[in-house]
Amino acid sequence: MPRAVREQQMLDAAVRTFARRGYRNASMDDIAELAGVSKPLVYLYLNSKDELFAACVRREAAALVAAIRAAVEHDAPADRRLWSGLHGFFAHTAEHPDGWTLLHVQARTHGDPFALEVAAMRVEIVEFVTHLLAVAARESACGPARARRMTGGEASGLAHALVGAAESLAEWASDPAGGGPSAEEAAATLMNFAWAGLGNLLRGERWSPGEHARG
Amino acid sequence: MPRAVREQQMLDAAVRTFARRGYRNASMDDIAELAGVSKPLVYLYLNSKDELFAACVRREAAALVAAIRAAVEHDAPADRRLWSGLHGFFAHTAEHPDGWTLLHVQARTHGDPFALEVAAMRVEIVEFVTHLLAVAARESACGPARARRMTGGEASGLAHALVGAAESLAEWASDPAGGGPSAEEAAATLMNFAWAGLGNLLRGERWSPGEHARG
Repeated sequence: MPRAVREQQMLDAAVRTFARRGYRNASMDDIAELAGVSKPLVYLYLNSKDELFAACVRREAAALVAAIRAAVEHDAPADRRLWSGLHGFFAHTAEHPDGWTLLHVQARTHGDPFALEVAAMRVEIVEFVTHLLAVAARESACGPARARRMTGGEASGLAHALVGAAESLAEWASDPAGGGPSAEEAAATLMNFAWAGLGNLLRGERWSPGEHARG
Repeated sequence: MPRAVREQQMLDAAVRTFARRGYRNASMDDIAELAGVSKPLVYLYLNSKDELFAACVRREAAALVAAIRAAVEHDAPADRRLWSGLHGFFAHTAEHPDGWTLLHVQARTHGDPFALEVAAMRVEIVEFVTHLLAVAARESACGPARARRMTGGEASGLAHALVGAAESLAEWASDPAGGGPSAEEAAATLMNFAWAGLGNLLRGERWSPGEHARG
């Protein structure tokens, strides 16, 4: 079996073990057994438990970012672009629950340098979303809204809100105790929550504390 | 000095130290010195580093939940209720950055039982927000929307999204590297993001993948 294939099998086993038991309680014996290889071979390929963990974090982070980027339908209207990106995020985290737990819980829990690596991935996603929003705002602005363009800071704030909302829903969806939404439901919930609000913002409309409820 | 007052001083010093150095790197010597008391007195009052940490988490979680509950203007229209609650959350986390870091980063990082305590606080906040949304939906539903009431599951999903968005913005606002929004800006960003979207949902309007952008 080629080295690259065997290495992926070890990483698969390690992601699953780290996600379910945490860094400290995961043993190299368990990982080797789950991967169907000897423990010395795991050490030969991946050096140490720390480096194995780091390789898992990097692989899962790259896979998540790639899944979101690939899912976005760049030529579609702004709402479809958002929908396709959200769908990509929730579908990927639902298909890879252990990878998601590794990134969202274990890597942050295990402290630096892993937490820093996850933070860097998160910055990349927030910047990607900020860019999508800025493009959408340029396309949507018309009439009086042109005078009131969305600033970079506003787009960044909205991207932080959207990413945080997505993480929260993905965490709920992946709750092992159950009761959370499916990936499809989570994506639909967030799209419904976000779109009408973003849609108005992209057209330059604002809510202000002085106005009263329209409902 | 009464015991209760002295104990609060110790907790103030401990929250600050745990938040800035993390559980492992925080020493009881530092905490005692910062509180202006002897180390034996800290142990006499709070038993152990673990119990001291637990007391900090409980105090900060209770204070955050109380601040949000107190901020909500229950007799105001739905959008003002949301605005006042968001404002309470961002004002409290901005005024107590160490308390927020303790809850959002350190307690989750330090694992159970502290992570469980923070998770329980989060459930309480999500349920509170779910309740607010369900009440607002009942008030807002009219005309054809009556036939399409917001379900408990939908309100819960929206509450998860809203809480996650708020956490993400608070994390950005409290970034020691700076560049994030002020509490006021964070609250305004989230309100603008959320309200028009929620406002439509509360009236029974939905976004669906089949429709095109209105922008």
